Amino acid sequence: MRAVQFSRFGAPDEVADVVDLSAPPPPGPGQAAVDLLAAPVNPADLLNLRGQYGIVPTLPAIGGLEGVGVVTAIGPGVEHIRVGDRVLLGGGTWRERQVVSAGGLFALPPGLPSEQLAMLTVNPLTARALIHDAQLQPGQWVIKNAANSGVGRSFFTLAKKAGARGIAVVRRPGLEDTLKNWGAEAVLVDGPDLPERVKALVGDGALRYAVDAIGGSATARLAAALSPGGVVVNYGLLSGEACQISGVDLVFRNIVLRGFWLVNWFQHTPREEVARAFGELIGLLAAGELTTPIEATYPLERVREALRHAEQQQRGGKVLLVIGS
Amino acid sequence: MRAVQFSRFGAPDEVADVVDLSAPPPPGPGQAAVDLLAAPVNPADLLNLRGQYGIVPTLPAIGGLEGVGVVTAIGPGVEHIRVGDRVLLGGGTWRERQVVSAGGLFALPPGLPSEQLAMLTVNPLTARALIHDAQLQPGQWVIKNAANSGVGRSFFTLAKKAGARGIAVVRRPGLEDTLKNWGAEAVLVDGPDLPERVKALVGDGALRYAVDAIGGSATARLAAALSPGGVVVNYGLLSGEACQISGVDLVFRNIVLRGFWLVNWFQHTPREEVARAFGELIGLLAAGELTTPIEATYPLERVREALRHAEQQQRGGKVLLVIGS
Repeated sequence: MRAVQFSRFGAPDEVADVVDLSAPPPPGPGQAAVDLLAAPVNPADLLNLRGQYGIVPTLPAIGGLEGVGVVTAIGPGVEHIRVGDRVLLGGGTWRERQVVSAGGLFALPPGLPSEQLAMLTVNPLTARALIHDAQLQPGQWVIKNAANSGVGRSFFTLAKKAGARGIAVVRRPGLEDTLKNWGAEAVLVDGPDLPERVKALVGDGALRYAVDAIGGSATARLAAALSPGGVVVNYGLLSGEACQISGVDLVFRNIVLRGFWLVNWFQHTPREEVARAFGELIGLLAAGELTTPIEATYPLERVREALRHAEQQQRGGKVLLVIGS
Repeated sequence: MRAVQFSRFGAPDEVADVVDLSAPPPPGPGQAAVDLLAAPVNPADLLNLRGQYGIVPTLPAIGGLEGVGVVTAIGPGVEHIRVGDRVLLGGGTWRERQVVSAGGLFALPPGLPSEQLAMLTVNPLTARALIHDAQLQPGQWVIKNAANSGVGRSFFTLAKKAGARGIAVVRRPGLEDTLKNWGAEAVLVDGPDLPERVKALVGDGALRYAVDAIGGSATARLAAALSPGGVVVNYGLLSGEACQISGVDLVFRNIVLRGFWLVNWFQHTPREEVARAFGELIGLLAAGELTTPIEATYPLERVREALRHAEQQQRGGKVLLVIGS
């Protein structure tokens, strides 16, 4: 059974090895065997291989924080899923087969592409949790940078569904049509005068919630664009730099800077609300409203190429690992 | 009537002019005339003269955000204060006389030095508000940088009174005895390994509240020293640099960065609580437990020298403007 394993932390395309492990034993009581179909390479995966993710794994470890698989066997007492069902998978997805507790699995509806389902948890669920956290009222403004990212793709769609007016901040021109198509009302290229351009756009309106995935001075520009009392939520570390925020914004304008991590969200969110969130996202996917662009797919054996590709800026979509393509 | 006025924003010792203004009219109904006794030069005053304070004054403006004066006349209907009472003054204190609404004035007890009373609002009240905000339990740790500052002086005294264990972070050695005398349990010189030294000190204990007056990378070091879920509160902009905080601390360790401004605190705190806070601080002053060191006093006419002096790092105490010395 092939798996992508790393035995030390470092540059992802140097530390990821394709290894042949012994197949797991048949599922025991309450367990299921799931064969991987597809799994994306997210920025969090790259942090994970560098040893910089929030949970540092014990080495050697198997990569992959999300994915979709098909149930190939179930153990005694498992009744809510059947062989042949597709299910979402959590940590350590980059392997051909894993045996997991069936309690956290649910059967995905047929007819939806596995590649899209494989990307449903880390990015769209983060976007939905942020939109809920923002407590947006209809007509209210909201802003997010790295807008052309996996989370951005869902964020503006969900913001528009909530009746909010999304301001998409991007790092290069040429993305206006894409972002507006996803639901953003305005698209601005980041730069030193971003706060002034945002204020001109919002006018007398209030902008109380900003989502930052970049850090460095990009965080400070979002903070400076907010109305007094607003909050900047950082969930991504794309620049690798510490987030910056002016003391003037903190002290005199009462701006708050905090973080968001999906792992924390899972820990503090009731199961029914988690199920409702997944249900909503699957419904949007089925309606064709939440399709995440895919730039390339690679078989598991070519994981190093996939990792190099995923580390490139200015991609047009996600990089996925797939089985049997 | 002499006053310290500025007609443009800039270097404090260049824009502050001593001018001769016409004396204010006698106090009307509900008003009092108050002659200044002493007023400090706080960092916030320097920001104010630079046009960088949270409330940008209309020019020309009179400097001075706090001070103490003596009531020299009262208008009709004023009964809670008398001629000869000393009272605390708010904005625009750097003038020999002002006529103000008597509603916000209260008579200070006799016997306490005017210089100390003049410094009671901006620094000790900020320290007290921060200590309350921290909701410290007995035995809990708390940390503050720029510990050898006006706010620091009160902060560690009040923290110790609350039963908390204060970690004083300073920018130069040689202050250990002073800070411990003020109530700090430990004194650490700031540096890249500050988080590790704090963790070694705190051990299994929790450190959930940090107070930052500096900004730049100093903010990030306090954040990294906190236990997960902790909060960094910035109230000062001493370095002039944007506050930094690692995305790792925000996202994976759930650290929050926010600001504190005494002007906001006044707006959101009930009058009785404000009165209780002043009462406590005056009590501590009377008990000799809250004396703020004074490095130098200057008459109003030598305000430019006073401002230059106040801008020097590594002072041993506050710079004050006094009348009639």
